[in-house]
Amino acid sequence: MTYFVRRGQVAITWAHCDPAGIVFNARFFEFFDHSTWLLFEEVLVMKSHEIPARFDIVGFPVVDVRARFFKPLTYGVVVDIETTVTEFRNSSFDVRHRLLQAEDLAVEGLETRVWAGRDKSDPSRIRGIPLPAAVIDRFRIA
Amino acid sequence: MTYFVRRGQVAITWAHCDPAGIVFNARFFEFFDHSTWLLFEEVLVMKSHEIPARFDIVGFPVVDVRARFFKPLTYGVVVDIETTVTEFRNSSFDVRHRLLQAEDLAVEGLETRVWAGRDKSDPSRIRGIPLPAAVIDRFRIA
Amino acid sequence: MTYFVRRGQVAITWAHCDPAGIVFNARFFEFFDHSTWLLFEEVLVMKSHEIPARFDIVGFPVVDVRARFFKPLTYGVVVDIETTVTEFRNSSFDVRHRLLQAEDLAVEGLETRVWAGRDKSDPSRIRGIPLPAAVIDRFRIA
Amino acid sequence: MTYFVRRGQVAITWAHCDPAGIVFNARFFEFFDHSTWLLFEEVLVMKSHEIPARFDIVGFPVVDVRARFFKPLTYGVVVDIETTVTEFRNSSFDVRHRLLQAEDLAVEGLETRVWAGRDKSDPSRIRGIPLPAAVIDRFRIA
Repeated sequence: MTYFVRRGQVAITWAHCDPAGIVFNARFFEFFDHSTWLLFEEVLVMKSHEIPARFDIVGFPVVDVRARFFKPLTYGVVVDIETTVTEFRNSSFDVRHRLLQAEDLAVEGLETRVWAGRDKSDPSRIRGIPLPAAVIDRFRIA
Repeated sequence: MTYFVRRGQVAITWAHCDPAGIVFNARFFEFFDHSTWLLFEEVLVMKSHEIPARFDIVGFPVVDVRARFFKPLTYGVVVDIETTVTEFRNSSFDVRHRLLQAEDLAVEGLETRVWAGRDKSDPSRIRGIPLPAAVIDRFRIA
Repeated sequence: MTYFVRRGQVAITWAHCDPAGIVFNARFFEFFDHSTWLLFEEVLVMKSHEIPARFDIVGFPVVDVRARFFKPLTYGVVVDIETTVTEFRNSSFDVRHRLLQAEDLAVEGLETRVWAGRDKSDPSRIRGIPLPAAVIDRFRIA
Repeated sequence: MTYFVRRGQVAITWAHCDPAGIVFNARFFEFFDHSTWLLFEEVLVMKSHEIPARFDIVGFPVVDVRARFFKPLTYGVVVDIETTVTEFRNSSFDVRHRLLQAEDLAVEGLETRVWAGRDKSDPSRIRGIPLPAAVIDRFRIA
């Protein structure tokens, strides 16, 4: 099963970079998060801030995230980002991000996220809830 | 009238610094914000996350902020920060932050903040509400 | 004298926002900085990382910056940004940024920056150096 | 083989938190990076900015990093952080970070870093160089 791939771009700014002149590693996780939101926006055809209310969730927080760095990126460059869900499970899913500079893989990111709602018996707690089949269907590409 | 002065320290990290090897200017506003919260924690003797509920406010958002930079700061240094309210008005107040490296002024920050609650007639809106005299009294030093 | 106005957009992301659901104030200074670099890229028709070497400067660090907040911005919105130099002096200049949401001014930022090079007698020190007339000319619009 | 464990604290600030009121995941990688630098400062008994020059390296950039989130952290809390090297190899090493709230594991981070210097034949390139035995020795605890 393959799912919809979002393709976008990220402009590397001075603020993203550290004293070595390259993107500070923590910044990539902002790029990943934003691209995941944009993926959901494109697939569900709604604004990101409308998604929680529409599906009665608090969001899809990251529970596990990993990044591997193959090429350093410096300020002033613009890189391509490809984002796709690699697996849906009952109440969680995996997202893969690939940052490419002139078609060379610079960074790969892997997120595991939970489709999370409020616990009915204790609304102060957040827990995984089943992903609607209708959501998963929207990501399928023939 | 002078008010309580909070004195603390900020450790400059690699993540705070830009390709010129100095703290990126946006970072100072994180330091200012944190020190304002710590000032209120010290003066009101409560945890920052308890303050909104205690006073029925959503917080004290910044409406005007300015920083002047006199000396660049590099990673690995630890600087002193002095934070104080310089003026209380009906529903707003000014905070001044001074970052000192070995007693030399490196950065000065000035924040104007609003003591903000939800509009009773439209809870989706936020508006300034009167600062309790009891709060202001706690900042007074004889 | 009026100078070239750069017009761009900023997409507000989840990572930009704080627990009140609005952009954390420090983030705006990242937007300002990036837009100033893009202004110089457009006007000088070169990449930002090429500018320091081309003009024998270390950059144009901010020495004074101020922001005023008129409307809170929430994640998921896309705002317009207008950036222009408002004054050039011998070795410093002022930049004004205006963030607009549906034509309403949400945030105004004012930066004073120094055209900075290494001190010839002590390369570890940075100091203001005269702005080339050729640079200023490029910003002029008839 | 076990190595020196650095123990410190991290204060969670408003700026660290997202609209869900919890620390935004990218922020943890700033905490990890800073704690790795502080570990080296403690073990090598020198300031972080002195380390590159002392060992003729550009630093120890992250090439692979992972974080797992077990408990969300909200602003205003102070958590313990434990940082240790788990393995040294020829020119790379692994660092483990554990964030604990009241002794409960909230976040675990794993970094792989390269001991990196400039390529002698092409100084614009960075490459792994052998970790000095004297450095590794300093991390050993009887």
